[in-house]
Amino acid sequence: MAFRTMEWIEAGHCLRLLDQRFLPGTVQYLDLTTPEAVAGAIRDMTVRGAPAIGVAAGFGMAQAALLAEAAGPPLIPALEAADRVLRASRPTAVNLFWALDRMAALWRAGAGGARLLEEAQVMESEDIAVNEAIAAHALSILPQEVTFFHHCNTGALATVGVGTALGIIRRAHDSGRKVFAYLDETRPRLQGAKLSSFELMEYGVPHAIVVDGASAHIMRRHKVDMAVVGCDRVAANGDTANKIGTYNLALAAQDNGVPFYVACPTSTIDLSTASGDGIEIEERDAEEVLRIGDAVIAPDGAPAFNPAFDVTPNRLIAGLITEFGILRPPFDVNIRALFAERGLRKGR
Amino acid sequence: MAFRTMEWIEAGHCLRLLDQRFLPGTVQYLDLTTPEAVAGAIRDMTVRGAPAIGVAAGFGMAQAALLAEAAGPPLIPALEAADRVLRASRPTAVNLFWALDRMAALWRAGAGGARLLEEAQVMESEDIAVNEAIAAHALSILPQEVTFFHHCNTGALATVGVGTALGIIRRAHDSGRKVFAYLDETRPRLQGAKLSSFELMEYGVPHAIVVDGASAHIMRRHKVDMAVVGCDRVAANGDTANKIGTYNLALAAQDNGVPFYVACPTSTIDLSTASGDGIEIEERDAEEVLRIGDAVIAPDGAPAFNPAFDVTPNRLIAGLITEFGILRPPFDVNIRALFAERGLRKGR
Repeated sequence: MAFRTMEWIEAGHCLRLLDQRFLPGTVQYLDLTTPEAVAGAIRDMTVRGAPAIGVAAGFGMAQAALLAEAAGPPLIPALEAADRVLRASRPTAVNLFWALDRMAALWRAGAGGARLLEEAQVMESEDIAVNEAIAAHALSILPQEVTFFHHCNTGALATVGVGTALGIIRRAHDSGRKVFAYLDETRPRLQGAKLSSFELMEYGVPHAIVVDGASAHIMRRHKVDMAVVGCDRVAANGDTANKIGTYNLALAAQDNGVPFYVACPTSTIDLSTASGDGIEIEERDAEEVLRIGDAVIAPDGAPAFNPAFDVTPNRLIAGLITEFGILRPPFDVNIRALFAERGLRKGR
Repeated sequence: MAFRTMEWIEAGHCLRLLDQRFLPGTVQYLDLTTPEAVAGAIRDMTVRGAPAIGVAAGFGMAQAALLAEAAGPPLIPALEAADRVLRASRPTAVNLFWALDRMAALWRAGAGGARLLEEAQVMESEDIAVNEAIAAHALSILPQEVTFFHHCNTGALATVGVGTALGIIRRAHDSGRKVFAYLDETRPRLQGAKLSSFELMEYGVPHAIVVDGASAHIMRRHKVDMAVVGCDRVAANGDTANKIGTYNLALAAQDNGVPFYVACPTSTIDLSTASGDGIEIEERDAEEVLRIGDAVIAPDGAPAFNPAFDVTPNRLIAGLITEFGILRPPFDVNIRALFAERGLRKGR
C-alpha cells in the first residue's frame, strides 16, 4: 500500500497523519506533536472517519501525558485540558468520546504517558482486527458476483485497518469474487470521489463514481446487490448517524429491494442514546457547499445550509455488520443481547 | 429582470441565447443564426430546461426555412435536415419532439419561413401563459407561510416565462406569502446552486443551497411544506422523468410526509409512453462528474457513470400541476380525461 493513514513516531512523540485534505492530488504527511494540533487535525478533517478519529484522539492523550511528564508534574490539569480540546473537536462521531473515555479511565486512575501510549497502540491494533472481522462476517453472505453501492469513505483512510464498509468491498475483491462498486461522490467534501476512488484504484477494484442523486435510478435500472456504509454513531435502537446522504441512499435501496447494511464496529454503538432523534448533527461551514477547490459554484453571497450527517432510521437497515457477527432486527433487543453476551460497556 | 433567456432578433434571423454555461459568474449572450448552431447550443446546454429547449428548437426550424428561402428552393430537404439535427440534440426532454412535431405539421403542409417564425413566437407566448397558469393553480393550495424543497433549475432560465416549479416559488413570494426555499444544488451540473440561486437572489426570495444528499435529513428535522420539481417527460401513467436526483428527492419527501408535486405543462406529457420504464435516459460525459470548473475531484483515470435523468414513479407524486389545474392520482385516468376534455393531442 502506497499510503499510511496514521503512524506513531517515537522520536518527538509525534503522530504522523496523511493529510487527507489534499488527496487524491497530493500524498503528503503532517507531523503533530501536541494534543491541540491533533484536535485541530480532527476539526479540519486532515484525519477523518470515526475509527481513525478515535485512535488519533487516543494518541493525542498519550502526547499530553508525555509532554506533561517532560515538563514536570502535575499531570492531571494538562490531561484534563487535552481531553477537553479533543472532545470539542467534532460532535457526531461517537468513537471520539469512546476513545477519550477509555483513556480517561486510565489517567484518572494514575496511568502515565507510557501506559497511555500503550493503550492508544492497543486501540490501533484492535481497530485493525475489528476491520478484518467485519469483512469476514460480510463475506459469509456475499455471492460470487457482487455489485455494491457505497457512500463516503470508510476504507483504510477512515480507520487504521482495512476499513469498515470499504474494507468489505476490498476483501470481497481479494477473495476472488467478481466485484463492482458504485461510489457516491458524497458532497460536500467528496470523500467518495476523492478518497474511496483513490483507494479502490490502488487495490484494483472496478468501480464508478456517481453523483449522490443517482442512487435510486441506478438501483432501478442496473444490478445492485447490496448497499453498505459506515457509521459515526449507532443508537441503542439501531438508528445510524453517518455522513449526510446516507439516509437518502437507504431510501433508494429500500424502494428498489436492495439490502442496506451498516458496517459497525461495536465501539460506534452508543447505548446511552436511545434513538437517532437524540443524536446531535454537526452543521459545518456553508463554504464547503459553495466552493469546490477553487471553483465557486454559486452566486456571490448565496446562502447555503450544510448539515454534515444524517440519521438513517433502523427500519431501513437490513443488518449491522459488527466484529462479532451480523446483527439483524429488532436491533434494540439484539444490540443489548450482544453487549451483555460480550461484556461490552453499556453506556458512555 | 436583469437577464433574458431567449430573444428573437429579426435582423439576421438570429436567436439570441443567454449562455447558461457561464452563469452565475458571467451574463453573456450567444447569437445563433443556423439550426445547426441551435442544436449545438441545446446539446452543450447553453440553453437547457425542457420548455426553453422546445421553443429554441421552434426558432431553429424557422431559421432553416428562412435560410432556405434566401438560398432558393427546394425548402423541404433543408427542413428535413434541420429537423434531424435538432431532434438528435438531446434525447430525454419531450418538449423538443413536441415542438419539432408541431413545426413539422406546418412545413410538411407547405408553410414557409414567415409562418414557421410566427408559430415559434406563438409557442413562446404560450409558454409564458402556461407558466403563469401553473403558478396560479399552485397558489390556490399554498399556506401563508410556505417552505419549499426544489431540484435543478425550472425558472425563467429553463423556460421563456416565469418558470414552472421555480415560477411557483417566485409567484408565491410575489403574492406576499412568507416563502423559504431549500435548493438542491443538483449535481453534476449544479443548476440549483448556479441558476436557481441566481434567480432567487435576483427576485429577493430567501433560500439556502443544500447538497443533494441532505433532503431527507432536512425534511426530518426542519419544517418543509412541499417539494416541487419540473419535468422533462411525463408518461401516460404519471411517471415523471426529470433531472437525476429527483427520484431520490421524492423518496425523501415520501418518508417524511412532505407532499411531492410536479409542475407539468401538458406539452411535457407523452401519452405515447405508457410508463417511465419506456423513457430513454440520456447518459452524459463522465467528465461532468469528475470535474467541477477547473477543479478535478477524483484521481487521474477514475471512472464515473453519469445518467442525466431519472424516473420518479407515479406513486410518489401528490399532484401534477398543469396549466389547466392540478391532476391527482390515479394519473393514468385523470391525464386521459384532461386530454379528452381539452382536445389535446393524444400521442406523438
